[in-house]
Amino acid sequence: MAAMKWWGWGHEGVEFTHEDKPALGPFILEAIGVDVRSRGAAPLRFDQLEIPDPALPGDLWEALEQAVSPEFVSLDRLDRLVHARGKSLRDLVWQRAGELPRVPDAVVRPSSEDEVAAILEAAMRFDAVVIPFGGGSSISGSLEAPAVETRPVISVDLERLNKVLEIDADSRLARVQAGVFGPDLEQQLAARGYTFGHFPDSFTHSTLGGWIATRSSGMQSDRYGDIADMTKGLRVVTPSGTLVTRPLPATSTGPSVREMVLGSEGRLGIITEATVHVRRIPDKRVILGYLFPTFSAALVAMRELAASEHSVSVTRVSDANETQFSFAMRVMPSLADKLQSRALRVFLSRKLGWDLNEMCLSFIGYEGSEQHVAAQRRGVGKLVKRHGGLCIGSGPGALYDQKKFDIPYIRDFLLDRGAAGDVSETATTWSNLKPLYEAVTKAASGAFASVGVQGYLMCHLSHSYHAGACLYFTFAFKATSPAAMEAEYEVVKSAIQQAFVDNGATLSHHHAVGTEHAEWLEQDISAPGVAMLEALFNGTDPGQHLNPGKIVGTNHRAGAPVRAARAD
Amino acid sequence: MAAMKWWGWGHEGVEFTHEDKPALGPFILEAIGVDVRSRGAAPLRFDQLEIPDPALPGDLWEALEQAVSPEFVSLDRLDRLVHARGKSLRDLVWQRAGELPRVPDAVVRPSSEDEVAAILEAAMRFDAVVIPFGGGSSISGSLEAPAVETRPVISVDLERLNKVLEIDADSRLARVQAGVFGPDLEQQLAARGYTFGHFPDSFTHSTLGGWIATRSSGMQSDRYGDIADMTKGLRVVTPSGTLVTRPLPATSTGPSVREMVLGSEGRLGIITEATVHVRRIPDKRVILGYLFPTFSAALVAMRELAASEHSVSVTRVSDANETQFSFAMRVMPSLADKLQSRALRVFLSRKLGWDLNEMCLSFIGYEGSEQHVAAQRRGVGKLVKRHGGLCIGSGPGALYDQKKFDIPYIRDFLLDRGAAGDVSETATTWSNLKPLYEAVTKAASGAFASVGVQGYLMCHLSHSYHAGACLYFTFAFKATSPAAMEAEYEVVKSAIQQAFVDNGATLSHHHAVGTEHAEWLEQDISAPGVAMLEALFNGTDPGQHLNPGKIVGTNHRAGAPVRAARAD
Repeated sequence: MAAMKWWGWGHEGVEFTHEDKPALGPFILEAIGVDVRSRGAAPLRFDQLEIPDPALPGDLWEALEQAVSPEFVSLDRLDRLVHARGKSLRDLVWQRAGELPRVPDAVVRPSSEDEVAAILEAAMRFDAVVIPFGGGSSISGSLEAPAVETRPVISVDLERLNKVLEIDADSRLARVQAGVFGPDLEQQLAARGYTFGHFPDSFTHSTLGGWIATRSSGMQSDRYGDIADMTKGLRVVTPSGTLVTRPLPATSTGPSVREMVLGSEGRLGIITEATVHVRRIPDKRVILGYLFPTFSAALVAMRELAASEHSVSVTRVSDANETQFSFAMRVMPSLADKLQSRALRVFLSRKLGWDLNEMCLSFIGYEGSEQHVAAQRRGVGKLVKRHGGLCIGSGPGALYDQKKFDIPYIRDFLLDRGAAGDVSETATTWSNLKPLYEAVTKAASGAFASVGVQGYLMCHLSHSYHAGACLYFTFAFKATSPAAMEAEYEVVKSAIQQAFVDNGATLSHHHAVGTEHAEWLEQDISAPGVAMLEALFNGTDPGQHLNPGKIVGTNHRAGAPVRAARAD
Repeated sequence: MAAMKWWGWGHEGVEFTHEDKPALGPFILEAIGVDVRSRGAAPLRFDQLEIPDPALPGDLWEALEQAVSPEFVSLDRLDRLVHARGKSLRDLVWQRAGELPRVPDAVVRPSSEDEVAAILEAAMRFDAVVIPFGGGSSISGSLEAPAVETRPVISVDLERLNKVLEIDADSRLARVQAGVFGPDLEQQLAARGYTFGHFPDSFTHSTLGGWIATRSSGMQSDRYGDIADMTKGLRVVTPSGTLVTRPLPATSTGPSVREMVLGSEGRLGIITEATVHVRRIPDKRVILGYLFPTFSAALVAMRELAASEHSVSVTRVSDANETQFSFAMRVMPSLADKLQSRALRVFLSRKLGWDLNEMCLSFIGYEGSEQHVAAQRRGVGKLVKRHGGLCIGSGPGALYDQKKFDIPYIRDFLLDRGAAGDVSETATTWSNLKPLYEAVTKAASGAFASVGVQGYLMCHLSHSYHAGACLYFTFAFKATSPAAMEAEYEVVKSAIQQAFVDNGATLSHHHAVGTEHAEWLEQDISAPGVAMLEALFNGTDPGQHLNPGKIVGTNHRAGAPVRAARAD
């Protein structure tokens, strides 16, 4: 698995394009005033970057080479650069501009838990810092060493720990190494008739260990659960030895150590292996598209669906803005025909009285036996109808399913054109969804206005639970100037995050804390909650060798001091 | 809510009796050699006990009286005695014999979170220990102060915090004070059409806060989830202020603080309030009885049920020994007729070829709309049939449902007759259930033999999950002499617990760690897991004011030193 671009999402040569999407250019021009034909803001070339030489003391270097053999201790400049950060919008802006962070001094690639333990032992012995690295897809600043870090920094890339070790068919559990990427994991399982069923947007470029370390959620969580539900056994190399939690269905052994590792972002140790839920590949799988007259109507329908006896695999509803964006993204003429057909629009507006500007696109997924899927479709169809919704068949859902992992590329596409695009997602109770949505909309509008940009905000409900749901916001704007983008982004992103915690929602549903969300943590989990996390981290890793500064700590904005220095 | 007996389960005057169960006496005589007609081992009378005077410094006393008003600071001897321990078998043996523990110096009863905070503040200021108290039903030693504790000990009884504060109908969440007892909670919710759906064996004598602090599971967890699944928002008074976690459906804010409070047994603070899942009271609710030819066949059926598309509220299967016990417990002649009828027995043995000694009784529960329940019954009926099972209707299930909370009284009934009866429950994967069951059976037999007693071991599967299930063991034996009971119990209980952790299972599925399970904790969650718990507890409560010695610590066997002193 080759690493991602040092300056953007995905592999070199793979990019998002508007050229096969006739309506997208006009849409973007109207939404944020960007002409997609004018690519004006390229990243620096690699040879223009000033990448510092590695500062790796000889005895540490030797110990690392003993731990994993010399060929798997890399001091290569590009390798180190790729491992220096994740893929947050801020990361992309800085990387493209050559504003580099504290680049790790070495990238090591262990092939076994013993090798991971030897790396950690060496790091502790020679007072170095270790940062575990999966796919490098973090958008919360979880992978960057503190700018002020003077100790050697070692990025531990787990890509060689990529095997499904064992499947327990009776227990529907698989024992899997932590460094396996999404597609590889599904392929190894599919060869034996199983699926893990965890499909986050980052799926193609993220790993099992990364999902666990950040409390990831996949698109089919309504059926499969979040990563926290699916992960049972864990093996984690820690400063006091290898933590082993058994693959138990449930246990009452005090505060859950398993739940401490989930979301720990490398601060407690390096996850090497997990025993996770798997399921037989279902006979039937379909995602149906639905249209609702308004976002409010769709939210109520999803709430009733969650409270009903129906079982579905996906619940997703775009608000009106995101619905317009989805329509503008269409490639295939058959879908375009269907959605745009004058007949349908006339029917919806004249016969049903819909305001087409308020219309919302929804996807609901079904999985299982033919009979089960048929029964759920029927039942859900009636529920949708009661809320004024309309089924538009499986075409849009199939297209969504096929294109869903392309979305992260759009940020690079926009940056190439001087515009910022990013996401903020949260979760709250059903009763608070609409008030929260309105508060965030207002906060974003205010932020766009305050920095004088034409912004666009859109949103979808992406995961449903008993008591509430995830709202996933996407925003974009054209910066007033390239130099102003970062500050303007900061204002908009902060306004949205602040609206989350000010209105009873969480700072993130599944993107973790890292450094970029850390300033809102106390407002989310309260000061005693932060104190408990600090007690856990400081007691487990008193020397701060494990990915210091993430989640809690004194260095919430890892990049800030470097930027300040450069501004002088 | 009056407190339980100081010497046994439930309220004074309520007892278990064999007199309305004609087959029980002969069964017990055959199983463990106890003649139920001979009551020979009564507890001491209250006036025979030597209860130490409270040692409460005047300034602390004053501060507590200021915190909750004088009438809610109790120094009463009986009150303090009832709060000194839970209801483990060991607790009962010692209490009955007048071997008292470190009795608390005061019992305080706050009526608000502010009062709880004032109590904790006073305890910290005057270097006292606080032990939160719900229903006092712990069977793991979670409520007893360390025998060596020289500081003042305050039991904080939360019974006045007993209100459902708010129901959010759209989100199906209720905000509830932590001290509410099970029946009161259900009554308050039922008045508005809701149920919590959490029914542990201890239901009548345990509280919401206690369930959360010990990671409780109820009998209908297959539908409602364990307490960890049902508890979303929390308010906990801690040494650094009030911890507040929001009632979020999901979040990725680092290691889960919510999951740290779950199972914390008072070591992180005092839980005052929780926001929990509730559901509308279902239209239809039924528990059906089934018979299976063998325990193995029934376990495979339950495994397939868990992997199927059916949804049920209860899955329970007794092994052959527990099935025999259940039949011996029958009161109602109509049921006796049915189960004992010569016709049925002849049919099962002659026509179906069953060995009636291997036969297993199972209960499967269904809840929801009439249509849903009917569909599930049909589908599950076919599944059961494929595994040789036979539905015996709703009579036995209704009886089980009605009598389920009487079981804890049986331990007192046996102690009155010189016999010990107790439980050990665990959880493991589906593939490991049968090997574990056999290992525990062997371990218990070995232990009974080694101490020279006639013992009886029985078991049921009580909660099903994706990857495994809970096995709930009950054992009983007649001690060789009253003085030997405690040592003999220790051998048997330890052998069973050791078999759990030696065979890939957990030390407890839903009875927590306390002091009595603490010696197996490291074997369950590994040494680094214990280190993480210690980091959390020591960092959060460096002065060890919060229920010290529970889960981890140097004082795993709270009662031991007192006993040693008495033996001198």
